Amino acid sequence: MQVSARNALKGTVKNVVVGSVNTEVTVEIVPGVEVTAIITKSSAENLKLTEGKQVYAIVKSSDVMIAVD
Amino acid sequence: MQVSARNALKGTVKNVVVGSVNTEVTVEIVPGVEVTAIITKSSAENLKLTEGKQVYAIVKSSDVMIAVD
Amino acid sequence: MQVSARNALKGTVKNVVVGSVNTEVTVEIVPGVEVTAIITKSSAENLKLTEGKQVYAIVKSSDVMIAVD
Amino acid sequence: MQVSARNALKGTVKNVVVGSVNTEVTVEIVPGVEVTAIITKSSAENLKLTEGKQVYAIVKSSDVMIAVD
Amino acid sequence: MQVSARNALKGTVKNVVVGSVNTEVTVEIVPGVEVTAIITKSSAENLKLTEGKQVYAIVKSSDVMIAVD
Amino acid sequence: MQVSARNALKGTVKNVVVGSVNTEVTVEIVPGVEVTAIITKSSAENLKLTEGKQVYAIVKSSDVMIAVD
Repeated sequence: MQVSARNALKGTVKNVVVGSVNTEVTVEIVPGVEVTAIITKSSAENLKLTEGKQVYAIVKSSDVMIAVD
Repeated sequence: MQVSARNALKGTVKNVVVGSVNTEVTVEIVPGVEVTAIITKSSAENLKLTEGKQVYAIVKSSDVMIAVD
Repeated sequence: MQVSARNALKGTVKNVVVGSVNTEVTVEIVPGVEVTAIITKSSAENLKLTEGKQVYAIVKSSDVMIAVD
Repeated sequence: MQVSARNALKGTVKNVVVGSVNTEVTVEIVPGVEVTAIITKSSAENLKLTEGKQVYAIVKSSDVMIAVD
Repeated sequence: MQVSARNALKGTVKNVVVGSVNTEVTVEIVPGVEVTAIITKSSAENLKLTEGKQVYAIVKSSDVMIAVD
Repeated sequence: MQVSARNALKGTVKNVVVGSVNTEVTVEIVPGVEVTAIITKSSAENLKLTEGKQVYAIVKSSDVMIAVD
């Protein structure tokens, strides 16, 4: 499946924190660059997300903001 | 200003495409890793975004999805 | 690719309106049920979206609201 | 109240999972087509969401992605 | 219609900028407090948004971030 | 840091509800106008959010909808 979301960052799952409805997943893109996702607990289970797994962090470009110092 | 968004990826503006209401901004995080943002035209103007500028791509973690091959 | 987004509604492209930066895509899920997406113009081009094409409308569950009459 | 969100899919609540802050609500649009929403626990309580209730799943079109096989 | 989105800020339309696909709408909540929305051009037309009109700016709470100085 | 998000509403934290993964934060903008945010528990901890703290509620304009009565 090919998705219209412009941003698909390849990485490795570093950490998974399971909540009651949601799960927090931290993905290392390259050393020092991490992306954190909140997805539903059942999605995390469906995707069998565990530390070390190769994944993509997907973000729709309309959900990205830009900041400057 | 410190923002609650968990993801602030430091990078360099690579490309700016100006539309009628929105502007598309591509940020290189590291060579080979780019993030594209759609922000309002006036925000892009306020931040004086031009190629080569150091910026952060900011994403709220609830807007990140995870995909696997 | 398998995505964590819980909602993947199968349908057929009914209409495509191309803007300067964004493109509006209307997908018929079943007769009488349509979903409209705003995606970047370049995503729409990459996916070669034209009327009649079989697609999925993907929505992260944290982006769905509930309303009652 | 009439909302600018382009997508208002009429359906029936199939399942409600209550968490500590958020609640997951599954809505059947037509048999075989379901949409899952994560809303705050207090919103779910305000709307008195229970199985069988007629509701609308509301999605802003900028939150819809398109995928192809 | 009652929506699960927790934030419905009552205000007055101050400005409407029409683009090719999207429209930017600025709403004054109270003097000095404004909220800007990007909605589809056709939604803005359906709602007949013009300066001075009484409206609500609706935001899902999962789309709100918090920042501190 | 200056963020592209068009909406930065200054206010005071009125209430904080801590969940297992997420935290709900209610901010009073002016008396009678409140905004509720769902952010990650760790973000809320990083920002040391407690009642009475001066904060900004930040919303990207593409996440704002408009409704009329």
